[in-house]
Amino acid sequence: MHKVKAYLDCLPKEKAWELWHSRLLASGYFSEFPVETLKVDQALGRVTATCIYAKQSVPHYNGAAMDGIAVRAQDTFGAAETKPVRLRLISSKEAFTPGYCYIVDTGDVMPEGTNSVIMIEDVHVEGNSAEIIAAATPWQHVRIIGEDIVANEMVLPEHKLIAPADIAALLAAGLETVEVVAKPKVTVIPTGTELVAHSRDLKPGTILDVNSHMLCAAITTWGGEAVRHEIIPDNYEQIKKAVADSLKTSDMVITNAGTSAGTEDFTSQILSELGEVIVHGVAIKPGKPVILALVKGKPVVGLPGYPVSAMLTAELFVKNILIQRQMLLKPAVKEVPAVLARQFYSHIGVEEFARVSLGSIQGKTVAVPLSRGAGLISSLIKAQGILAVGKQSPGLPAGAEVTIKLFNEQPQDTILAVGSHDLAIDVLGVFLKRQTGHLLTASNVGSMGGLMAVKNNEAHIAGIHMLDEKSGEYNISFVNKYLTKGTWQLVRLARREQGLMVLPGNPKKIEGLADLVRQDITYVNRQRGSGTRMLLDYILAQQGLAADVIDGYEKEVSTHMAVAATISAGSADTGMGIRAAAIALGLEFIPIAHECYDIILNFPLNDAMADTIITILKLPEFRQEVERLGGYDLSEAGTILAVSGSIANNYDSQTYVKEICS
Amino acid sequence: MHKVKAYLDCLPKEKAWELWHSRLLASGYFSEFPVETLKVDQALGRVTATCIYAKQSVPHYNGAAMDGIAVRAQDTFGAAETKPVRLRLISSKEAFTPGYCYIVDTGDVMPEGTNSVIMIEDVHVEGNSAEIIAAATPWQHVRIIGEDIVANEMVLPEHKLIAPADIAALLAAGLETVEVVAKPKVTVIPTGTELVAHSRDLKPGTILDVNSHMLCAAITTWGGEAVRHEIIPDNYEQIKKAVADSLKTSDMVITNAGTSAGTEDFTSQILSELGEVIVHGVAIKPGKPVILALVKGKPVVGLPGYPVSAMLTAELFVKNILIQRQMLLKPAVKEVPAVLARQFYSHIGVEEFARVSLGSIQGKTVAVPLSRGAGLISSLIKAQGILAVGKQSPGLPAGAEVTIKLFNEQPQDTILAVGSHDLAIDVLGVFLKRQTGHLLTASNVGSMGGLMAVKNNEAHIAGIHMLDEKSGEYNISFVNKYLTKGTWQLVRLARREQGLMVLPGNPKKIEGLADLVRQDITYVNRQRGSGTRMLLDYILAQQGLAADVIDGYEKEVSTHMAVAATISAGSADTGMGIRAAAIALGLEFIPIAHECYDIILNFPLNDAMADTIITILKLPEFRQEVERLGGYDLSEAGTILAVSGSIANNYDSQTYVKEICS
Repeated sequence: MHKVKAYLDCLPKEKAWELWHSRLLASGYFSEFPVETLKVDQALGRVTATCIYAKQSVPHYNGAAMDGIAVRAQDTFGAAETKPVRLRLISSKEAFTPGYCYIVDTGDVMPEGTNSVIMIEDVHVEGNSAEIIAAATPWQHVRIIGEDIVANEMVLPEHKLIAPADIAALLAAGLETVEVVAKPKVTVIPTGTELVAHSRDLKPGTILDVNSHMLCAAITTWGGEAVRHEIIPDNYEQIKKAVADSLKTSDMVITNAGTSAGTEDFTSQILSELGEVIVHGVAIKPGKPVILALVKGKPVVGLPGYPVSAMLTAELFVKNILIQRQMLLKPAVKEVPAVLARQFYSHIGVEEFARVSLGSIQGKTVAVPLSRGAGLISSLIKAQGILAVGKQSPGLPAGAEVTIKLFNEQPQDTILAVGSHDLAIDVLGVFLKRQTGHLLTASNVGSMGGLMAVKNNEAHIAGIHMLDEKSGEYNISFVNKYLTKGTWQLVRLARREQGLMVLPGNPKKIEGLADLVRQDITYVNRQRGSGTRMLLDYILAQQGLAADVIDGYEKEVSTHMAVAATISAGSADTGMGIRAAAIALGLEFIPIAHECYDIILNFPLNDAMADTIITILKLPEFRQEVERLGGYDLSEAGTILAVSGSIANNYDSQTYVKEICS
Repeated sequence: MHKVKAYLDCLPKEKAWELWHSRLLASGYFSEFPVETLKVDQALGRVTATCIYAKQSVPHYNGAAMDGIAVRAQDTFGAAETKPVRLRLISSKEAFTPGYCYIVDTGDVMPEGTNSVIMIEDVHVEGNSAEIIAAATPWQHVRIIGEDIVANEMVLPEHKLIAPADIAALLAAGLETVEVVAKPKVTVIPTGTELVAHSRDLKPGTILDVNSHMLCAAITTWGGEAVRHEIIPDNYEQIKKAVADSLKTSDMVITNAGTSAGTEDFTSQILSELGEVIVHGVAIKPGKPVILALVKGKPVVGLPGYPVSAMLTAELFVKNILIQRQMLLKPAVKEVPAVLARQFYSHIGVEEFARVSLGSIQGKTVAVPLSRGAGLISSLIKAQGILAVGKQSPGLPAGAEVTIKLFNEQPQDTILAVGSHDLAIDVLGVFLKRQTGHLLTASNVGSMGGLMAVKNNEAHIAGIHMLDEKSGEYNISFVNKYLTKGTWQLVRLARREQGLMVLPGNPKKIEGLADLVRQDITYVNRQRGSGTRMLLDYILAQQGLAADVIDGYEKEVSTHMAVAATISAGSADTGMGIRAAAIALGLEFIPIAHECYDIILNFPLNDAMADTIITILKLPEFRQEVERLGGYDLSEAGTILAVSGSIANNYDSQTYVKEICS
């Protein structure tokens, strides 16, 4: 293995682009592009390589544009209602003489000698005579040769994206084939000893190569022809050979390094040897270690290994190169103003990018930053736009006015669910889309986070499960305390099972909360403010158990899944969470309580959306779908528990309190 | 042949859509769609048929998220700069004991017993000991199982368009295949005895079938799988059989009638016999005779034969059916406010649609209606948006504030050229796009129309060739007279040849304008206000020829091409126009004069675009390209002749006057 100098420039994004783009421009990469000839009807969505000139005129003959009679206009001059002109109707086989006329249908060739068509409605035909009561103007209702397209005229300019009507124009103008810009061929080489190609080969410490498929798909959407190379392990000579070989047949090569330390330096060293590394390291987060190189006049890009980093850097540095290589205009990026739903920390010295969900709430557009881990594919699939926070900024507070670059020109109408996560929210999203076409995007920040998001009009829906230790009641006291303004409703979604998760077989024979105080039991807890923590503390108090004797009570993680994972990894014997988390990681589940998972609906008064959601919650199909997930009771789903500050009449708060603990 | 009842309902568009859509909805057409299973990496751009749940968690193991040391967080509690904690570094093969730690790289499995990673930068490693000066929190820098996607969680909802990141998510979640909505198969049947499939078979009275190719391409862009049927002549049984056969294998059938009278009634009768005609005739223009039918639970649409009508009705009635059949959300239509550049007449009782070019001129968005003939493919390829004028409106005046529906979300930056047409304008457009990325759209309304468009800030560029009979000077006196406000420049584009066009071989032996007064010669004239008419009148006066003795002087047509076509059709012996028109229709050309074709540039002061255009006009490559067309002299191209009301200093007006006539 070669010794590699690990350097990272950290250029500003704009400077990196300029260095890279100007070198490609100077190398002639954008002007000397390959061309291919296609049959016109195969050229949809391709780009004309040259200006295209008509081979024939359209129409190619003077034809009647209406059903009627073909006349010589001069013969009709002076005609009026009071002074009709009579012309002699002759057959198309007879030669024209002034004063004669012919019956013509739309599209018929204008008989020689005629220059005008009078619509059949305006002619009184009797035997072989036609009576006209208004003069015709020359060439009225005649489609003249070349009226649409003139032979030798330019039909399409060079570098035009061919749309359906362009296909019609090319064919009409007599072209059977068309020269188009060849699709740029891009080879994507996944590198990394830890990568495997198939799920079935996954084991701890290996990573499924999904990036190369994602990048190939992105290249396809940007008009390129993507070729996926097989995985190359972290071997200097093998990577070098793969890059060199791929360049022989490709217009561009992308290497996508594994996330192991030093992998990208491998690539940098290889590209320096094969050609020239123009940029290594850009001051952006995620995506910092991107490599931009030029090898044999072709661009070679080293993209970082985390999926979010790979996608962001491909969008920043690959997309527009491909667009320009195809002689397409750079698509304008649509930006919308929005209000930031949550605080966003940023590092000074790098430009940070956050993917966001967008929704229109009580009249303002709200941007909810998605989890920002570079490895989170889930943030890629939920995002509707991107927020860039400049190098000089330490971050932005909740409520900040920001500008969001949209991924699609038209963001979808989105219902933002912010709060405690539950799988039932996903199911609600499916039913909502079916019924209204709206997309639901969930952002999981816990119950209190959801409550605050509604308070600040930064969420349409908040899922909460917050137990009031004093009353033993769920949710109602919290919404009444915090939501003193606005127009909201608190609605039952489900009762769901909370319990202790343990390893399969329950090796420590844990039977309930009382076991937590045992010396041989370690616990993993949820963070303060989470509904699960509230529930634990309430039951411990009820049962007279002291929290401070539980080994691990102070060890806090922030999701049901983190609890399950901690237990699964053997770092704790048990922890509390919902049954679904236990099922997901194959743990055993000891039920402790049923809790109330409710949703706050934050819509203007009389907004149909709130009613639609409540109707969905009451649908038998919806309830069955959620209950199928395990641990859910939806028999009260859709019940209104409180409305803008007062407890709803149709729910008995006392019954409620009695029922909450099993 | 069957007798057909020719009826036409003329329903309002919205009513027609509602009748049609509600019947398809009731028939279950949108809910019972075919499904196919694809490999995940083949599913880009397809639509999920069902909700898709994760088969595995991502990540599938607890792994280090940083290079560093893996520790048990509890072992580091209390560490500080003043009180470092020392842990014993052991190899990954050795079992964990409290107080031990391991070196890990990003992605490594967390060794059993550890629950936290400290970045290598924050650790002082010496021999087999690691010194830590700050406590680690549990699970810091650890990627926890399921952090991204949890097994059994919904990865993608049903009916989602699969984007590149979705492919990554599906693969990561352990899916190898995905069920997607099958592309709706649509068969397009071109009907009409006058249709031919190939240019080589064209003769007068036949029409090239281009619509079926255009419609198939449109169906493809709307996500359908288009099948083009061979042309069927106007034969009742043949059309009926083609429709019935196509329905066996298609989700939708489109017939596209020829423009001959009565063809569409054929279709209506056939569809009534096979199924049910729900709508025949919609109160729109163009597109009135559209037929919407339901046969064996599938939609069958009869589209009118003119290309613009066919495309408009497909956009109105086919597009959204296909979108909904694929369970896609209906794309929102983007609308922009604009100022109408020209008067637009409309008929009361029908909703009229006009395709428009859009440009931003001196701060306002201007919509220029394109020629509205239903047969003009050229209007389809130039259009950027569509203007709908309601049933109750008799039309709109120039300057009216209108709303334009855009075809693309993002209209291109467009330079609007309005005025007298010249092929050199097309070439200018090509160079402009190369240099600036801006599209040039030309609207041909004659010189005076162009002058008025600049006056009203409804054009960026106007090509004019207007001869002042008094001074014998071109253009300058007109711009100084009419353009008393604004910031404009008049710039020379070309001198071009005007002359008499005659049939090949010049059968009447015409040598010049003097021959026009001969008894055996018929003439075709251009309309008053056109540059060519001005030139003729000027030279006739100079040569002492009387206009009123020219046979056909009163016969006016409005384009160079119409003149050429009139001669080509034998309806006149000669007429005046530019050499290019003669070349286009294979006519002989007798040069009469060189005229000055100049352009007015209407841009704010110091706008770079005006300078860019002038620079292009001076480029040798540009000049050669135009001169190659024949009849052009560009040696003065780019010379500024007048600037906002005063003649430019660098041009000698006297020289100019002397030179104009050859």
